[in-house]
Amino acid sequence: MSVHEVVATYLIETYLPLEQAAEAVAGEQSTGTFTAVARETPELRERFAARVVSIEELPPTGNPDLPGATRPPAPRTGSPGAGSPGAGSPGSADAAHAAGRTSGRVRVAFGLDNFGPSLPNVLAAVAGNLFELRQLAGIRLLDLDLPTPFAERYPGSQYGVRGTRELLDRPDGVLLGTIVKPSIGLPPEELRLVVRELAEAGIDFIKDDELMGNPPHSPLADRVAVVTEELDKVAARTGRRPMYAFNITDDLDRMAANQDLVQAAGGTCVMVCVNLVGFTALAWLRERCALPIHGHRAMTGVYTRAPQLGIDYVAWSKLARLAGADHLHTNGLSNKFYETDEEVLRSITAVRTPLLGGYETLPVLSSGQTPGLAPETYRRTNTTDLLVLAGGGIHGHPSGPAAGVTAMRAAWSAATSNTDLDKAATQVPALREALDKFGGIRA
Amino acid sequence: MSVHEVVATYLIETYLPLEQAAEAVAGEQSTGTFTAVARETPELRERFAARVVSIEELPPTGNPDLPGATRPPAPRTGSPGAGSPGAGSPGSADAAHAAGRTSGRVRVAFGLDNFGPSLPNVLAAVAGNLFELRQLAGIRLLDLDLPTPFAERYPGSQYGVRGTRELLDRPDGVLLGTIVKPSIGLPPEELRLVVRELAEAGIDFIKDDELMGNPPHSPLADRVAVVTEELDKVAARTGRRPMYAFNITDDLDRMAANQDLVQAAGGTCVMVCVNLVGFTALAWLRERCALPIHGHRAMTGVYTRAPQLGIDYVAWSKLARLAGADHLHTNGLSNKFYETDEEVLRSITAVRTPLLGGYETLPVLSSGQTPGLAPETYRRTNTTDLLVLAGGGIHGHPSGPAAGVTAMRAAWSAATSNTDLDKAATQVPALREALDKFGGIRA
Repeated sequence: MSVHEVVATYLIETYLPLEQAAEAVAGEQSTGTFTAVARETPELRERFAARVVSIEELPPTGNPDLPGATRPPAPRTGSPGAGSPGAGSPGSADAAHAAGRTSGRVRVAFGLDNFGPSLPNVLAAVAGNLFELRQLAGIRLLDLDLPTPFAERYPGSQYGVRGTRELLDRPDGVLLGTIVKPSIGLPPEELRLVVRELAEAGIDFIKDDELMGNPPHSPLADRVAVVTEELDKVAARTGRRPMYAFNITDDLDRMAANQDLVQAAGGTCVMVCVNLVGFTALAWLRERCALPIHGHRAMTGVYTRAPQLGIDYVAWSKLARLAGADHLHTNGLSNKFYETDEEVLRSITAVRTPLLGGYETLPVLSSGQTPGLAPETYRRTNTTDLLVLAGGGIHGHPSGPAAGVTAMRAAWSAATSNTDLDKAATQVPALREALDKFGGIRA
Repeated sequence: MSVHEVVATYLIETYLPLEQAAEAVAGEQSTGTFTAVARETPELRERFAARVVSIEELPPTGNPDLPGATRPPAPRTGSPGAGSPGAGSPGSADAAHAAGRTSGRVRVAFGLDNFGPSLPNVLAAVAGNLFELRQLAGIRLLDLDLPTPFAERYPGSQYGVRGTRELLDRPDGVLLGTIVKPSIGLPPEELRLVVRELAEAGIDFIKDDELMGNPPHSPLADRVAVVTEELDKVAARTGRRPMYAFNITDDLDRMAANQDLVQAAGGTCVMVCVNLVGFTALAWLRERCALPIHGHRAMTGVYTRAPQLGIDYVAWSKLARLAGADHLHTNGLSNKFYETDEEVLRSITAVRTPLLGGYETLPVLSSGQTPGLAPETYRRTNTTDLLVLAGGGIHGHPSGPAAGVTAMRAAWSAATSNTDLDKAATQVPALREALDKFGGIRA
């Protein structure tokens, strides 16, 4: 890969010839406008125009059309593939599978000299107005290859997998965590009791819900005070201090002040909702932050869920990692959200793949996670470099959160030692209860 | 509207009973998880749970289904509407219009006490994980009603329509602008010539292309130096100094330094790509910035173009205005992008509607704008409180950019005085040339 280029990979669907659509992307996102303009010399185009690197035609995707896509003229009057303007029917089902649409995986190279190693400025080129182009009936940014000058400007994950394990003194095994539930509304003094119980049960990691920021009814300062006090007490008794990710998401100056507050109190992790503050805010925090940054993915669905539009998790996660997330939410298998297990596994792989400079980020599996999922999760990921969060799966345990932690730990222990979960449950009543309540061992 | 609540309006499409889907949204985005948990008392739910305010069933939309939507069991085995889990075929055309899907406009109220008047934290509630819910086959945030405590924290547009007119000494009439073209690659000394010609022709506003940030081949500092020198010279000769929006989009500390640079040089406007830096970064800049902020909408299509998913421009623009944009791109009629004229007009109305505290933001009409569009644009917006940008429509004029400015000005003058454009063109050869080249008067 050239150090002088950013290469973006797209899924493109179009009624134009695929080459023409790819050139429209390259043109709009570099030197082009809708008409020839003065001073746009061949030399300038040669130096600054984006370059279509490859076009791979794909089988039909079955994706619906985006509205406003340029369609060829009606068959009896026009020549096929001529691509005259005219809005497609807006997103209707009839428009999908229409004759003449092709799908392709297209790679476009943008000269780094067009924007320099700046995340927001590279987004202007690789995304920018692209999603609005009429030439495209589908457009999705799949991946992004960033050259080494980005590594020089952005340090990326500071702790990642290894640093988090060191802080937790857990050199191996899955890292086990939970989310404070109820999501919101718990008074600090009740939070104290929840944290105490979870910490005593030997959990590795606890986090605020993403809905819990710094609200008047439970100010962050109060939460930090009670949580750190409890964790200190547990650490004094047991020698183990779980990591607690305080949600510091807020406007920037407030977020920085929140970070300072957590650090001053001896906190060991902060959580940021990456999309809610933005990649630039995350990168800004990263420069100021001595603690691991737990990257929550709230609102990622707006980029990923429409198959014909958006930014794939693979590309999204690279940006979040470069901006400095140490942990990144991927969802888990059989989660309660829309993604298939295959998509979740792809996300886990993406987060673990060494990025510029070689760092790995810790994937965070959450949503609907219960002990029964441990065997299949381990079999399909083939790693314990995972932070597995069970919210309801721990707090909803029939015998309470401590039993929930015990059950999750026992399930992962069984999974990694290739022991049948039902057999393990004969020794661990809390596991038996969890399997009975939450159901289904998947192996 | 209560000062204690944020009300979000959604388009929801679902195979579940509409009431059930609406409750899923309210639950997931406030107190809920997938199972009952300890300490989630009725009192807590009463105080913190989001509340479904209204449900209005809509006619079928024809939108495609989102992947992963919970579908009812197959007709011969299941009871209709029971809504048992099971992934829908991912976004396929066959899934749309399927029997049993309903669409609704749903309003949900979230207690302000859940998050306080914080833009990123309110987004966790009104958007957050919502786009990933299986219960929904379509989900779009249409609008957002924010109570007055948001006005107290966020000052919003600083200049807006009135302040921009005052700075330009243009108390009435449309504001006429252009984008520097070619988008990228123009050396500063050629930029000087472009700016000189445009300014002498009497343009009100010039902006960097969004692709032009602070690249090595044309550093912002060099552009600021040559542009302000030229504008000063023109102002000395003509008494009129166009506003130039320098694109200061970058990582935050760099963006702030860019702003300082522009201001120190006597620049009068900065441009920020709102989505590329994020709402929080814009709000952060707003607190530090004495100049009008020209808000570019690059990448808004990723939120708006899929009809079954996303954030409507009406909601998006409120967030951008609250965060401090003075000008906001809406596209213009007959633009080269995917939106219909009706959508563009709705965006223009949204930006002009007084927001908390009563400020108006200046809508920026761009993309494919030519003199021929002036009559219809004026007829349909019924205002001249518009900043109309013609990029190719000015730079691509057969007699050069100065003639392009003359043609646009003449066209708008004719449109607002109800003069036929062809008739006006008999007096203004540059207008005749423009109409001949760019075509079509739309009136």
